[in-house]
Amino acid sequence: MDEFALISRFFSRPTPNSVLGVGDDAALIAPTAGMQIAVSADTLVEGRHFFADVDPVALGWKSLAVNLSDMAAMGAIPRWFTLCLSLPRADAAWLEAFAEGLFALAEQHGVELIGGDTTSGPLTISIQILGEVAPGKALRRDSACDGDDIWLSGPTGAAAMAVCHRYGKLRLDEDDLAYCAERLDRPQPQIALGHALVGLAHAAIDVSDGLLADLGHIAQRSGLAATVKLADLPLPPLSDEACALPQFDHCLLAGGDDYQLCFTAPVQARPAIVALGARLALPLARIGNFSTGRGVHLLDANGQALRLASAGFNHFND
Amino acid sequence: MDEFALISRFFSRPTPNSVLGVGDDAALIAPTAGMQIAVSADTLVEGRHFFADVDPVALGWKSLAVNLSDMAAMGAIPRWFTLCLSLPRADAAWLEAFAEGLFALAEQHGVELIGGDTTSGPLTISIQILGEVAPGKALRRDSACDGDDIWLSGPTGAAAMAVCHRYGKLRLDEDDLAYCAERLDRPQPQIALGHALVGLAHAAIDVSDGLLADLGHIAQRSGLAATVKLADLPLPPLSDEACALPQFDHCLLAGGDDYQLCFTAPVQARPAIVALGARLALPLARIGNFSTGRGVHLLDANGQALRLASAGFNHFND
Repeated sequence: MDEFALISRFFSRPTPNSVLGVGDDAALIAPTAGMQIAVSADTLVEGRHFFADVDPVALGWKSLAVNLSDMAAMGAIPRWFTLCLSLPRADAAWLEAFAEGLFALAEQHGVELIGGDTTSGPLTISIQILGEVAPGKALRRDSACDGDDIWLSGPTGAAAMAVCHRYGKLRLDEDDLAYCAERLDRPQPQIALGHALVGLAHAAIDVSDGLLADLGHIAQRSGLAATVKLADLPLPPLSDEACALPQFDHCLLAGGDDYQLCFTAPVQARPAIVALGARLALPLARIGNFSTGRGVHLLDANGQALRLASAGFNHFND
Repeated sequence: MDEFALISRFFSRPTPNSVLGVGDDAALIAPTAGMQIAVSADTLVEGRHFFADVDPVALGWKSLAVNLSDMAAMGAIPRWFTLCLSLPRADAAWLEAFAEGLFALAEQHGVELIGGDTTSGPLTISIQILGEVAPGKALRRDSACDGDDIWLSGPTGAAAMAVCHRYGKLRLDEDDLAYCAERLDRPQPQIALGHALVGLAHAAIDVSDGLLADLGHIAQRSGLAATVKLADLPLPPLSDEACALPQFDHCLLAGGDDYQLCFTAPVQARPAIVALGARLALPLARIGNFSTGRGVHLLDANGQALRLASAGFNHFND
C-alpha cells in the first residue's frame, strides 16, 4: 500500500470545523474571531516514551493525550492537530489500531486531524496541536502570585509505577498493575478542568516531567518559591504493599506521564475550586502554596524540609 | 547538557510576532483579524530524506525550507513554526550548526520558532508551520480549470541528480555537482511567488514528489487531465554530458526535492505572469495545459504521447 492510500484509508476523517482538511499542501482553518491560538507539539519515540510491544490502540490514544494535556494546561480548547508518523513498515493492522485509539480520543474532545505526513523510518510520532483561548486568559507558567495555593487535579505516580513494573524494577499485583497501566497507557487530559480554570486560576502546568520538576517550572518563570506538603499529596489508590515500595515516593514526586494538572490560585478561589471539583467529579487537592523566594521546597508532616535525590525526568540526563 | 538548557541555548530567539513564545505548555499567537490559517507539517528522517553525514547547517535550512514550500504552494505568508527534534545525543556543535541553518532561512522569511520539543532517539526532524491567507484566496489543488495553462517556477531534476551522484548511480563533474547539490541541500522556497500568485493562479502545488506525480495530484483533485510538453520543460543549466545521462529524463520528470512551484492559471493571465516572472527574476515556464479528462499526459516534440516507467517518488513504494 502506498503512502497516499495509507493516509486516506486510516487518517482521513470528516473535518467540519476546518475550511480544508487533509490532502492539499496545507490545511486551512478559520480561527474564531477575537480568539488567540495556543500551539504545542510533542514527540513520542519508541524505546523512549513507549515500549516496542505497546498496544497500538493505546499508543494512538496516548500520542494525542499528551498534546491535549498541553492545551488543558493553557486553559485552551483544543480544535485541530497534525500528525507526523514515521513507521518502519506500512502495517495496515497496526495503523488501523493506532488510528482507532487516536480518533477515539479526538472525537471525545471534538478535535480534527487536518494534516501531517507518513514516512518510513524508526517509529516516531509527532503531533502538533492548535487550540483557542481568549486574549489574556491563558494559564501561563509565569503567572503564579505570592500567596497562591497550589492545587493538583488528582494523584501522580501511578504511571511511573507501571513503568518501573514493566522494566522489572518492582512487582505490582494484578489490581495495582491494572490501575497503574491504565494511567500510563490511556491518560485522561484534563481539558474540561483547564478550560473551567480560566479566570479562576493564575498559573498551570501539566505534570509530564514529574510534580516537583513541573512545579519548578512555574516557580522559576513566576520568580517565586513553591512549598509542597508531602502529607497533603493525593495518593493513587494502590495496595499498602505498593505504597510501601522503596520507589513509591520517587514516583509520586518525580514520575511523569499521569498528566494531572497542577495549578495555582488565590486563597479566595478555594470555595469555587472545591465546587468545580465536585461538578467535574475530580479529586482536586490543595498541596501547598507559593511565596517569595525561589525553588521548590518539600515539607514532611512536621513541617521539616525534605531533600529529594532527583527532581524529575529529563530526556538527556537520565 | 540537559534538554531545557539545550532548547534555551540554541532554539530560543525573540518572537516579536507572538504573544508567548517557547517555554510554556504552549505558545500563544494572535492571528491577523479576518485571515485564515494554513497549517502544514513535514518530517525528515535520516537515511530517508538526508544522508547521515549531511552538513547540519544545510539540514537545518532544508528542514524549514520544505515546510515553507508548502506555504508557498498555498499562497500563504508563513508566520510561525514548531520544531520536534529527535537526536541520538545532545551534541552542542551539531545543534549550533543546525540552528544556524534553520534560523538563517527563518529570518529571511520573518517566521518565528514558537515551540516543539527535543528528545533522544533516531535523528528525525518534524516541523509544523502556520501561515496566513485571506479567506477564499488559497491556491488549492482542487481549483484547476479546463483550459488553464500549467506553469513551473523553474527547472526540476537537479536535486534528484545530486541524489543519484551521492548514491554512486551516476557521476557529475564538479560544476554540475555544485549546482545540483545546492538545489538539493539549500532549496529556495518560492514564498514571494506563491503570495503574488494569489488572485492570478487557480491551483498550485510544490514539486516534492516529482513533477508528473505532483501534477497528478492537481489533476486528480480538480477532476481534469494535465498535458505536459516535454520540449517546453525548463532544463537545469548542466553540461551536455549530464543532460545526456540515462537518468536525466527521469530526474526531470519524477525527481522531487527542488521545491519548484507548479501552478495553473487561465490563458488571460499570461501577460501578468510573464511580468511577475520578470519582477521576481524567476524563469517562469509554461509547460502545458489542463483539459477535460483525467491523468497526466506527456507529449514529445511531435505531439506524440510518451510513457513513463515511474511517475514519482513514494515513501513506501520504492
